[in-house]
Amino acid sequence: MSTMNLTLLTDLYELTMMQGYFKNNKTETVIFDAFYRTNPSDNGYAIVAGLEQVIDYVKNLHFSMEDIDYLRSLSIFDEDFLAYLKDFRFTGDIFAVPEGSVVFPREPLVKVVAPIMEAQLIETAILNIINHQSLIATKAARVVYAAKGDGIMEFGLRRAQGPDAGIYGARAAVIGGCIGTSNVLAGQLFDVPVLGTHAHSWIMSFPDEYSAFKAYAKLYPEKCMLLVDTYDTLKSGVPNAIKIFDEMRANNIPMPYFGIRMDSGDLAYLSKKARKMLDDAGYYEAIISASSDLDEYLIDSLKTQRAAISSWGVGTNLITSKDCPAFGGVYKLAAIMNEKGEFIPKIKLSENTEKITNPGNKTIYRIYDKETGKIKADLISLVDDTFDEEKDLMIFDPIETWKKTKLKAGTYTLREMLVPIFQAGECVYESPKVMDIRSYCAKELDTLWDETKRLINPHKVYVDLSDRLYKMKSELLDQMSQAD
Amino acid sequence: MSTMNLTLLTDLYELTMMQGYFKNNKTETVIFDAFYRTNPSDNGYAIVAGLEQVIDYVKNLHFSMEDIDYLRSLSIFDEDFLAYLKDFRFTGDIFAVPEGSVVFPREPLVKVVAPIMEAQLIETAILNIINHQSLIATKAARVVYAAKGDGIMEFGLRRAQGPDAGIYGARAAVIGGCIGTSNVLAGQLFDVPVLGTHAHSWIMSFPDEYSAFKAYAKLYPEKCMLLVDTYDTLKSGVPNAIKIFDEMRANNIPMPYFGIRMDSGDLAYLSKKARKMLDDAGYYEAIISASSDLDEYLIDSLKTQRAAISSWGVGTNLITSKDCPAFGGVYKLAAIMNEKGEFIPKIKLSENTEKITNPGNKTIYRIYDKETGKIKADLISLVDDTFDEEKDLMIFDPIETWKKTKLKAGTYTLREMLVPIFQAGECVYESPKVMDIRSYCAKELDTLWDETKRLINPHKVYVDLSDRLYKMKSELLDQMSQAD
Repeated sequence: MSTMNLTLLTDLYELTMMQGYFKNNKTETVIFDAFYRTNPSDNGYAIVAGLEQVIDYVKNLHFSMEDIDYLRSLSIFDEDFLAYLKDFRFTGDIFAVPEGSVVFPREPLVKVVAPIMEAQLIETAILNIINHQSLIATKAARVVYAAKGDGIMEFGLRRAQGPDAGIYGARAAVIGGCIGTSNVLAGQLFDVPVLGTHAHSWIMSFPDEYSAFKAYAKLYPEKCMLLVDTYDTLKSGVPNAIKIFDEMRANNIPMPYFGIRMDSGDLAYLSKKARKMLDDAGYYEAIISASSDLDEYLIDSLKTQRAAISSWGVGTNLITSKDCPAFGGVYKLAAIMNEKGEFIPKIKLSENTEKITNPGNKTIYRIYDKETGKIKADLISLVDDTFDEEKDLMIFDPIETWKKTKLKAGTYTLREMLVPIFQAGECVYESPKVMDIRSYCAKELDTLWDETKRLINPHKVYVDLSDRLYKMKSELLDQMSQAD
Repeated sequence: MSTMNLTLLTDLYELTMMQGYFKNNKTETVIFDAFYRTNPSDNGYAIVAGLEQVIDYVKNLHFSMEDIDYLRSLSIFDEDFLAYLKDFRFTGDIFAVPEGSVVFPREPLVKVVAPIMEAQLIETAILNIINHQSLIATKAARVVYAAKGDGIMEFGLRRAQGPDAGIYGARAAVIGGCIGTSNVLAGQLFDVPVLGTHAHSWIMSFPDEYSAFKAYAKLYPEKCMLLVDTYDTLKSGVPNAIKIFDEMRANNIPMPYFGIRMDSGDLAYLSKKARKMLDDAGYYEAIISASSDLDEYLIDSLKTQRAAISSWGVGTNLITSKDCPAFGGVYKLAAIMNEKGEFIPKIKLSENTEKITNPGNKTIYRIYDKETGKIKADLISLVDDTFDEEKDLMIFDPIETWKKTKLKAGTYTLREMLVPIFQAGECVYESPKVMDIRSYCAKELDTLWDETKRLINPHKVYVDLSDRLYKMKSELLDQMSQAD
């Protein structure tokens, strides 16, 4: 992705609007927030991801001569506007929640503060990138949660929605907790572990299963995982695998990592039977790995059934987030700067209260319980709100406002979640390595109570508004209803 | 995508198997078939797409020094194998069903005939590309079908699973029948129409809705579609739009294409009310366009409710194929050449009869009714099967074999669906332009009966096996059960 000029990766209307702003001399600085309204898969939280690719995209933003020629060919853009595009660069500020963070609905994940033409252009690509990677990172966190400490391998490249979905999906899956991916290009690009052994075609290309296993074990004795379901798992696959392990043991070949993989059939039944056969042959340490249309629910069910599986390859359902394949992030105007340099808050109405946007120049404070380090609530605030951890803090639900909680001084700590990424067009943030984001994400997940992490009907973490933001929003709503 | 080296866009096991074949001197030519087992979204057919990108991928296949260094760093590949990769090129044959064709389960959509190492490597990328684009082209055909002749615009870039999913998803959506896309980069790359006007942020950036409309109409009088739901569709949006149209009419400004767009609310109710307001003002030709989480079912329902909408923007549900976000194509070994140059058929067993593969070197014949030009059935055959349209043809269901049909001589025609794409590593096929593929696809859809195109519970098109293929398969199954 980073090698391709993605400047035209935008909806046409961003460009027609840009020309409109240009023609109307609209150069004011505005604030746009990228946020989402509902956690995917009915989860209790989301994991935000994709910031590094957003940064690459913004850094590389420029209209090539080829791009300009193409836009000219559409016969809707004037030469003065095309001339403006020739020198176009992003000159604004961007703030964002770091990748791998736990986030909740309605929080600004990316905040763009820039001249309106620039802020408008980048809407589509920011949403595309953040929506995709946050979706897959969140799904991965769910699958990893279900596996209760077992390793999850991302195996979905062949079913991903195109090359990028495989590449950046693998990146996001590792951020969400997968131990690695089968995708070699993702391994190369992001320095994450790549995993995999052989397929049925390997077995079928030999005269019989035993010869195929033997050839494989000879070549890869140190990581000897044998696929046992090509012909008959219990009658042929597992006995042949044991024969191979016996030969290796007899020849004193070290076997630091070995076992079998099952890719079909009733995994609960087959894994228990295979476990017994391996144990009876003395291979207590042999790993049983499974990979057959798995998702978090199936893994949870297999765990409940005490399936003897300790390593899981998850493909289609993870890489497409099959039950919920879109994240639903939106990008909404929150304020416009007036001639005096003050931000005038803007609000988008909707008949659905939850869909009314939060106006103004905002940030997010996360409130932790001082004793446990767990998240108590998040507070969307105005940037010039001040809080004092040494004082009591009253928070309340912004829709059901009678739901109030008083946090006693000294029992909570605050952390601002939005950090500067671009300042006046210059990138001021260095993205961590993907494996470091993964570690950070694991720590982030530790700040959630188990009740919020469970797969079904999770406990909701409250996202409240600061007093001043709530008042600003109420006043704007009043004004608009009076104007009616 | 085409500018990036995608050679490592593969599962690690393809490379560990390749090294295994290399070390075991396995250089035999093999046949792999890429096919799928179930139509997505319970559809009656699929539209195959992605071949042009498969061709680009295969043409560009090569391991760069950087790739070799990366593979070396994994400590699982030996220097002799890495040296082999340095000069790696694809030298085999590929056959495929042309893009935009109507296809059915179990038919080989891509057939690779190549030395086993080459055929193995390209599995993952072929599946990734064909699975993605065929999924979206099929979904688009469903949405277009529901719109009964109205134009469908692809608007999903912001919700696509990464940049490629947006770019190649737009390509596939146009192949499946969309009239264009909002995605400017897709427009540039594939020379397809780009569409779009303005967003709520345009309206909100002006002091009021009327000024925003006025500025827009001044700039784009020839394509004046006004977004009417920012504040209140019927009380504010439509009256302001009519005011603008009145002013344009009064000033004799030509309005070749104008109307309103609705992006929220009850589209059936609002569109009928808006239609009446526009008609009462004399704007019978004003277009009403809608775009609000639409899919084929919602469009079908709105059509049934006689919603006054004639133009549709479809986003998330199309670009992710939300109800079924994976196509499920697989790539299976069908034959291995022996020392005499004969293909020895191979079969993959499964407890599920439908999952047993079809062995041998195959092709597909499509059987058309001579009178109507509609598809009667498809016949998966061996490449050396011969058929004579001047003779009666008996076909039968390969699972429920008592289901037989006799086609009388002269009442049917045959067409071979697989065409040569690569011969001995050279590309011998020129991909048509996307808009030409779109036209071809529309003709392909005309070869289906309406009963096969309906959205729910479509009539199944039979895919039968030729006599000789059926016999080969039965004999192989007998042999395997005797070996048990």
